Amino acid sequence: MSYPWPDAGTALNAISTPMPVIDEDRLAANILRAQSYLDAHGKTFRPHIKTHKIPAIAKQQLQAGAIGINCQKVSEAEVFADAGFEDILITYNILGAAKLSRLKALNARIGRLSVVADSAVTIAGLADTFDAARPLAVLVECDTGGKRCGVQTPEAALALAEQIVSASGLIFRGILTYPAPGGAEMVEKFIRETMALLATKGIDCPVRSSGGSPDFYSAHLVASATEHRAGTYIYNDRSMLRAGHCSAGDLAMHVLATVVSKPTADRAVLDSGSKALTSDLLGFNDYGLLEGYEGAKIISLSEEHAVVDLSGCTGARPEIGDVVQVVPNHTCVVSNLFDRMVFHRNGVVTRVEQVAARGTVW
Amino acid sequence: MSYPWPDAGTALNAISTPMPVIDEDRLAANILRAQSYLDAHGKTFRPHIKTHKIPAIAKQQLQAGAIGINCQKVSEAEVFADAGFEDILITYNILGAAKLSRLKALNARIGRLSVVADSAVTIAGLADTFDAARPLAVLVECDTGGKRCGVQTPEAALALAEQIVSASGLIFRGILTYPAPGGAEMVEKFIRETMALLATKGIDCPVRSSGGSPDFYSAHLVASATEHRAGTYIYNDRSMLRAGHCSAGDLAMHVLATVVSKPTADRAVLDSGSKALTSDLLGFNDYGLLEGYEGAKIISLSEEHAVVDLSGCTGARPEIGDVVQVVPNHTCVVSNLFDRMVFHRNGVVTRVEQVAARGTVW
Repeated sequence: MSYPWPDAGTALNAISTPMPVIDEDRLAANILRAQSYLDAHGKTFRPHIKTHKIPAIAKQQLQAGAIGINCQKVSEAEVFADAGFEDILITYNILGAAKLSRLKALNARIGRLSVVADSAVTIAGLADTFDAARPLAVLVECDTGGKRCGVQTPEAALALAEQIVSASGLIFRGILTYPAPGGAEMVEKFIRETMALLATKGIDCPVRSSGGSPDFYSAHLVASATEHRAGTYIYNDRSMLRAGHCSAGDLAMHVLATVVSKPTADRAVLDSGSKALTSDLLGFNDYGLLEGYEGAKIISLSEEHAVVDLSGCTGARPEIGDVVQVVPNHTCVVSNLFDRMVFHRNGVVTRVEQVAARGTVW
Repeated sequence: MSYPWPDAGTALNAISTPMPVIDEDRLAANILRAQSYLDAHGKTFRPHIKTHKIPAIAKQQLQAGAIGINCQKVSEAEVFADAGFEDILITYNILGAAKLSRLKALNARIGRLSVVADSAVTIAGLADTFDAARPLAVLVECDTGGKRCGVQTPEAALALAEQIVSASGLIFRGILTYPAPGGAEMVEKFIRETMALLATKGIDCPVRSSGGSPDFYSAHLVASATEHRAGTYIYNDRSMLRAGHCSAGDLAMHVLATVVSKPTADRAVLDSGSKALTSDLLGFNDYGLLEGYEGAKIISLSEEHAVVDLSGCTGARPEIGDVVQVVPNHTCVVSNLFDRMVFHRNGVVTRVEQVAARGTVW
C-alpha cells in the first residue's frame, strides 16, 4: 500500500485529507521570534521537541541559537540521538531496570545528557546505574504551582540535591520547573530560596530552568532562571490564540479536511475525527476552529467524523466536497498521530518530513 | 534505536510502560460471545476493525463466523486488502479524485468491496469512476437518530437508491445506519418504511446493516436488519462497563503504567499521558479507571503525565515505581497510538502484533 504523501510542488488543495500542513514561513518566524526574545533577555533556549518530533525542525531551532533540546521520554531522546543531537535534557523521572539500562547506553553515546528527578526513589535508581567513569547530570524538579511533578519545598529540593551530590555517578546540574500559567512570581521565589539553601551547603546551581509556551514572553519576569523550555510556540494552536500568545498569522499548523456529508442544512460532517484532530479540549467546548466559516462549530468528534453545527453561521457555509482548514485546539497531540508531516509555502508543498519520534512514549 | 517490544514468555511486570496489553482469553471469549449471539438471531456479523487495526485479530473474527470486515477509510481497507481480506465494507462517503482512484484500484483487486453514500454528490463521483466491467456495490447511509451522516428520510433514501440503480458502474446493495444508543425502534421503523418505498419501484434491498457495540446485545430488536457491525466489543472499555454492556471480566485491554512521581500524599503521577490513554472522555470527567485502587481518580492528563488524585482512596495507595493497570475510557483510540500491541495469557506475553492500520485516516 502506498501512502498518500504528496511530492514537493503539489498544490495543497490536491492532497489527501485529513492532513496537517505546516506553513514554512510562519514556522521560521515563530522560531526566530522566540529565540530573539530569549537572546535579548540573556536566557538560553532549550526547545521541547514533543510538539513536532521531527529532527529537521529541531535542527532549525538549534541553527537559530537553541543550546540543545528537551525530551520527555528515553525513547524520544534515542530518536534524536540517532539523528545526531548531542545535548538532550529528559524532563522525566526515569524508573525501572529496563529504562535505566537504556538511559545509561544513551549517556554513553551523546555529549551532554541530563535528566530530572523529584524523589529519593528515582535518584537511588540513577545512583545505582551510573558511575564516575561516565556520570549523569541530574536536575531536581520543583513544583512551583503547576501541581504535576516536583518537590513541594526548597528544603526538599536541597535534600535531593545533597543525595545527588553524594552519588559518585551523578552530577547535580541545577533545578527545573514547569510552572502554572502566570506563575512567574512563584517560580522566582522558589528558585531564590532554593539557591540560598544550596549556597549554605556550598552546592552550586548552574542551571535554573523554567518553561512553557503559554507564558513564553513572560520568561524575563523570572530573573533568576537561566534557561527556558517550550514546544507549542513553534506551531502555535487555538489555545495559544485564545490566550493572546500569538496572532492568527502565527498559526503554522492547519489540518486540511474535506466535507464528506451534509445531512441537513445546519449539519456538516468533516473527515477529520478524533484520530486526526484528537479529542483534546484544553478548556474549549468544541474541537477546533473552522477557518473562513464564522460561527461554524465542531460540536463532536467520533473517530473518523467531525460533526459541525452550522446553525450559527453568519456567512458562507461549506458544501459537500469542499476542502476546509481546521486550527486544532492542541498541535502537539496532532503531530503524534501522523507518520509524516506536510510542509508548504504559500499553498505549495515544499517537503514531507517523517515524524521520527511519533509514538515514542516509553 | 530498538523499540521495547517484549518477547513471548516475558512477564507483564517486566515490560516497558506505558503499554496497552491484550488478554488473549478475554479477547477470544468476546469474539465468541458476540458471534454466537448474532448467529442465534440469524444476523450476519461484520466486525469493525478500527478497534484493533490488526489483520491477525480480524482473521480470528472471520474464523469465528464473521462474513467480512468493516473499515472507515480507503487506506485502512488497503492495509486489510494487502493482508488478504476479500470482503470489505467501507462505511464512508468517498469523495475527490485521489480517493476515488484508490477506491477503483481496491475494487479491482478484492472479491467483494462495498461503500456507503448519503448524498447525490458522493454517488455522482462514484458513478463517474466505476463502470459495468467492474461495478462497485453501494449502500445508502441513513440517519436513524444518531445525527452524524445519513439521509434524513426514507424518501431521500429511495431517491439515492434510484440514482445508484441508474448508474451502470454501481450496484445498489442496501441500506445502512449507525444508530443512537437505545434506537432499535427508530431503526426498525426507518428500515421498514424504506424497504416498502423501494419495493414500490421494484428495487431489492438485500442488505440492511445496523451497528454499534453499545447496543450490541439488542441487535435482535431490529428484526428487519440482516447484518450488524461493531468494533469496541472485542476489547471492551470503561464506557462499555459503565453502560452495563460488559463485566470487569470482559475487559481485554489494559494500559500498563508506572507511578513516576508522588509529590504529595494525595497526588501520584503516571507515565501514561494523553499520548498513551488519549484525552477521550466519552462522558466521564476523568481519564480511565485505575484498577485495584478504589477511589483513585485520574483527574488530568498532559502529554506524558497522568495526575491521579488519591484523596478519595479507601484502601492501598500506589507508590513510586509501582506498575499499575488502567482501564481506558475508549480502547479504539488507544490502539491508534501504538505501532504494536502486546498480547498475554495469565500475565505472560504470548505475541506482539503490528497495528498495521495505525494512522490510516485517509
